[in-house]
Amino acid sequence: MNLKKLAEEIKNFEGVIRKKEIKNVVSNFVFEEEYDFDIIVDFGDDAAVVGIDGENAILLAADGIWGKLLEADPWWAGYCSVLVNANDIAAMGGKPVAMTNIISIKDCDIGREVLSGVKEGVKKFGIPMVGGHTHPDAQCNVLDVSITGIVKKDCILRSDNAKVGDKIIFAYDLDGKLHEKFKLNWDTTTMKPKKIVREQLRALTIIGEEKLANSCKDISNPGAIGTLGMLLEVSKKGGVVDVTKIPKPEDIPLNHWLKVYPGTAFVFTAKEENVKSIVEILEDANITAEVCGEVIKDRKLIISDGKEKEIVFDFEKEYICGC
Amino acid sequence: MNLKKLAEEIKNFEGVIRKKEIKNVVSNFVFEEEYDFDIIVDFGDDAAVVGIDGENAILLAADGIWGKLLEADPWWAGYCSVLVNANDIAAMGGKPVAMTNIISIKDCDIGREVLSGVKEGVKKFGIPMVGGHTHPDAQCNVLDVSITGIVKKDCILRSDNAKVGDKIIFAYDLDGKLHEKFKLNWDTTTMKPKKIVREQLRALTIIGEEKLANSCKDISNPGAIGTLGMLLEVSKKGGVVDVTKIPKPEDIPLNHWLKVYPGTAFVFTAKEENVKSIVEILEDANITAEVCGEVIKDRKLIISDGKEKEIVFDFEKEYICGC
Repeated sequence: MNLKKLAEEIKNFEGVIRKKEIKNVVSNFVFEEEYDFDIIVDFGDDAAVVGIDGENAILLAADGIWGKLLEADPWWAGYCSVLVNANDIAAMGGKPVAMTNIISIKDCDIGREVLSGVKEGVKKFGIPMVGGHTHPDAQCNVLDVSITGIVKKDCILRSDNAKVGDKIIFAYDLDGKLHEKFKLNWDTTTMKPKKIVREQLRALTIIGEEKLANSCKDISNPGAIGTLGMLLEVSKKGGVVDVTKIPKPEDIPLNHWLKVYPGTAFVFTAKEENVKSIVEILEDANITAEVCGEVIKDRKLIISDGKEKEIVFDFEKEYICGC
Repeated sequence: MNLKKLAEEIKNFEGVIRKKEIKNVVSNFVFEEEYDFDIIVDFGDDAAVVGIDGENAILLAADGIWGKLLEADPWWAGYCSVLVNANDIAAMGGKPVAMTNIISIKDCDIGREVLSGVKEGVKKFGIPMVGGHTHPDAQCNVLDVSITGIVKKDCILRSDNAKVGDKIIFAYDLDGKLHEKFKLNWDTTTMKPKKIVREQLRALTIIGEEKLANSCKDISNPGAIGTLGMLLEVSKKGGVVDVTKIPKPEDIPLNHWLKVYPGTAFVFTAKEENVKSIVEILEDANITAEVCGEVIKDRKLIISDGKEKEIVFDFEKEYICGC
């Protein structure tokens, strides 16, 4: 394995580089007032967390589907708009409450397909779409979906809480297929009954309630290592990962797999004593989980193949999202 | 006054016609499962309402800023994205919790201006922006903002609860100015201190808590009569309105005023015995409120000038949003 080349590929992967823009956006939104509600987590996690009473917090997330995806496969874009939001809430240990969407339609046919995909997503994940906004006369076809969820304040799965010495666990549903048109999408849900898909996301809530993980992130656009990088960055930690241990379908090359946006996959960090329980909960839900590395103090994300090591990100000198 | 011509103008106003598309979108989202949370209101109101426990409900709304607005005055678009969402929550009698945004940037300059406007909106309305998504490489400049709010279940101001015999009250902050570029925007907030602006929206929460109104809607894109039309449509009622009584700045022609999207304005229906209290609460917050008509059983929205009458909408034969 050419580890140096792999490290370069991951670092320069579009799914990672795009995240740099977040810093410029987020810097506009510093909120410095006394407020009735408690902003527990804002930018930088899978969802924001706002405490609404002594026990409970609201989760807020939003996702826009990339323009190219939308036009090449509008049904899939619509379906994924629900999937990604469902995963964002699950990755916080939360339960979804409802979604809203804003759909801008330039081409009616595309609009129809998108809505059909959203409808299927709602049926599969069991989260109601309760409102939103429609632009029937837009310049571009755009689909943005927001989700609100709820979580007990002491059961939140954050991404900024990785501790030195934690084991790094990668967890993937390996029972799936690459999307025909989008080879970076690993579809694990369209072919499964809703019962299984929902149990998979509920597994995260159980991990949160039983306080088994120190941190968690849903693997998304930046891929496995990019996502872990974001988690370590906000945790102000580093990590060493043996990439050969990451659960992977046999027939997919590693450098491709590490960029894939999977239907159901997460990265956790946890105390060693909790690893067994986490793995069991996930495997009960058809998610393959493996310890692949460890969180370290030195703020670098290092990949290894069991023999050599390469630095992918050095957070003393660079950033992924800058949150 | 040519009432017939006015009725035609209102009926065919772009802000009204655009609403027809909602029906096609909403028909995709019928949710037929047993669910842990109580969907109290979904499409058709200023925000959706989902009960989360015995006492409380979450409010969800989302708004996308029209492409033309965004490119002609990106700062204003950014600012308005906060304003419209703040008003949507207030119009339900709720308190805002937080917002998320999805910003798609094609032109950096426009992106910067939009964010600057959003930032000012956050400062003015005092609602934190806590998360979202950024597309730094989009085909079009798009800004979509979602808001989550909270309300006591027995204090919700719905738009589908107008009762026969209710008085129709139009309420506007008349202290403002037409936007330089967008003559259908009546700006009442950029020039006011945040204290006043926030008190105006809190007035709605008070009206909700004191259970003074049967229905309420924030006047938005469809203008005064279009908005009232949507309220009556979902209430399955009709109404008669003397348009000469609607609060209006002296120097703005009525047919223009009725299409204006005002910064702070609402239409209520209420029992006669509650009118005085509603008007007092609003006038304490610098909002001019007048009784302009009455809710009737016959499902038509009729405008009058004190002498003649014209039907604008006949809900037995047509629809505005079809919710």
